Amino acid sequence: MEQKTTQPELFVIGAGPGDPELLTIKAFKVLKEADVVLYDNLANQALLALTKDDCQNIYVGKQPYGAYTPQETIHEMIKHFAFTNGKVVRLKGGDPFIFGRGFEEILYAREQGIKTHYIPGITSMQAAGLEDIPLTHRAVSESVWVVTGTKKDGRLSADLKLAIQSNATVVIYMGMKKVEEIMQSYLEAGKENTPAAIIQHASLPHQKSAKGVVKELKAMVDKHQLTHPAIIIIGEVVNVNSQINNE
Amino acid sequence: MEQKTTQPELFVIGAGPGDPELLTIKAFKVLKEADVVLYDNLANQALLALTKDDCQNIYVGKQPYGAYTPQETIHEMIKHFAFTNGKVVRLKGGDPFIFGRGFEEILYAREQGIKTHYIPGITSMQAAGLEDIPLTHRAVSESVWVVTGTKKDGRLSADLKLAIQSNATVVIYMGMKKVEEIMQSYLEAGKENTPAAIIQHASLPHQKSAKGVVKELKAMVDKHQLTHPAIIIIGEVVNVNSQINNE
Repeated sequence: MEQKTTQPELFVIGAGPGDPELLTIKAFKVLKEADVVLYDNLANQALLALTKDDCQNIYVGKQPYGAYTPQETIHEMIKHFAFTNGKVVRLKGGDPFIFGRGFEEILYAREQGIKTHYIPGITSMQAAGLEDIPLTHRAVSESVWVVTGTKKDGRLSADLKLAIQSNATVVIYMGMKKVEEIMQSYLEAGKENTPAAIIQHASLPHQKSAKGVVKELKAMVDKHQLTHPAIIIIGEVVNVNSQINNE
Repeated sequence: MEQKTTQPELFVIGAGPGDPELLTIKAFKVLKEADVVLYDNLANQALLALTKDDCQNIYVGKQPYGAYTPQETIHEMIKHFAFTNGKVVRLKGGDPFIFGRGFEEILYAREQGIKTHYIPGITSMQAAGLEDIPLTHRAVSESVWVVTGTKKDGRLSADLKLAIQSNATVVIYMGMKKVEEIMQSYLEAGKENTPAAIIQHASLPHQKSAKGVVKELKAMVDKHQLTHPAIIIIGEVVNVNSQINNE
C-alpha cells in the first residue's frame, strides 16, 4: 500500500511548445501525482486537467512585457508548498533549462533542503519542424545557434554578429521586440536576403507563421500581425522545402 | 467501428535521448497504431514493446563509425512499407530535425505521394540538464550553439571557430572522434580553460559523464572510457552548480 509522503520535492518540468500531447510520458506521470502545480504563461493550461482533485494549480506566469510574479516570490512559493504540501511541480513552457530560469529554481530549492528533479520538454525551436523547417539539413546547415532577444540588460546579444558570419541556423527566442535590430545586423553583414521565418503559437491550433527573407521581417510582422510568443528562424533551412520542390 | 486504412503515411518521430519515458504522448499514441517501425540505433528498443502484435519492427540503424543502412535503402523501405502496410513510423534517437536527416525522409516520402508527419523528440543536448548543466543560465550564458562533430566531408565544422569566440554554450553532437581537434581549436583561441563536460548514454541507467576543462577533454575520455553516443558541452554553464555551491 502506498503511503502519502510529505517529503518536500520539486519537479521542474518542461511543458513543451504548446500542444499538450507534446508533453513527455515522464512529465505526464509526475503531473498526475502533484500536490501543487506552479504554472507559467506559456505552459498549456489544458495540462492542469491531469492533476488530482485536491492538487492546487497556481498561476505564476509573466505576461509578455507586462505584469509578472517576481522570481523571488516563485522561490518562496516553491519553499512554502514543498514543505507544506509535498510534491511541487514547476510547469514551464518549452524546456526549463533553455531560457527558462529553471536551474535557478533547482538551486534555490536544494539550498532549502528540497529534493529536486528536472524533466526536459520539447523546446520551442523544435516547433520549426511543424512549419517544414528542419533546424539542420545535410549540405545546408551544420549548426544551430539559439539566442534570446531579451537580454538581462536589454541589448541584442553580441554573439548574433558571430552567428551571422556562420552557416548556422539562427533561432531567436523572445525576439519580437528586436526585429528591427536583427534586420539591421544582417544588413550590415550584407546578408539581408537570408531566408527567415516567424512562427507564433507553435504547435497549437491557432499557430500562424510567415516566411520571407531577413529584410522583410518587419513587414512580415505587420502584414500577418505576428506577436509574442513567437520564434524567429533565420537561415537557408527555411527554404529547404521549396528549394527541393523547385529542383 | 474503426476501419483499417491503407492510406500510406509516414510518421518521423523523435524517440528522445534514451529514457523511454522521455517520449512524447503524441509519439506514444502513434507508435501504438503503427504497422511498421523502422528504428535507429539510438532509439530505445524498449519502445518497440508498445507496438501492435502484427507490427513489423525493422532495424535500419547505423553503428557508430561502422556498418549502416544506406539512406537510399531507408527511403526505399519507407516507400515499400507505406504502400504495402500503411502506417510507417520512422523512429529516431533524439529529434529527427536536429542532425537526424529526418527532413530528407519527409521530402522523399512526399515525392512518392506519401502523407507525412513530424513529431519532435527531446534532443540529446537537453540531457545535459540531467547532469546539472542548464544550457542557458542568467548572467552566465545567453545562447546555445549546437554543432555536429561529423561533417559530410569529415572535417570539423568551420562554425565551431566562430562559436568559440562567442559566449555561447557550445554543444557538440557526434564529436567523440574529434576531441583532439576540438581541444586544439579552443587552445588556438586561448580558451583551453573553458569548463567542459562529456555525457554518454544520457538519461539511461548506464549514463556516465565527466567534467573538467577543455584542455582535459582527451584525458577525460581516456580516464572514464567514454565513447559514442555522447555529447560534449563546453561553456561556463558546466560549472554553474559548483560555482554557486562554493559561494
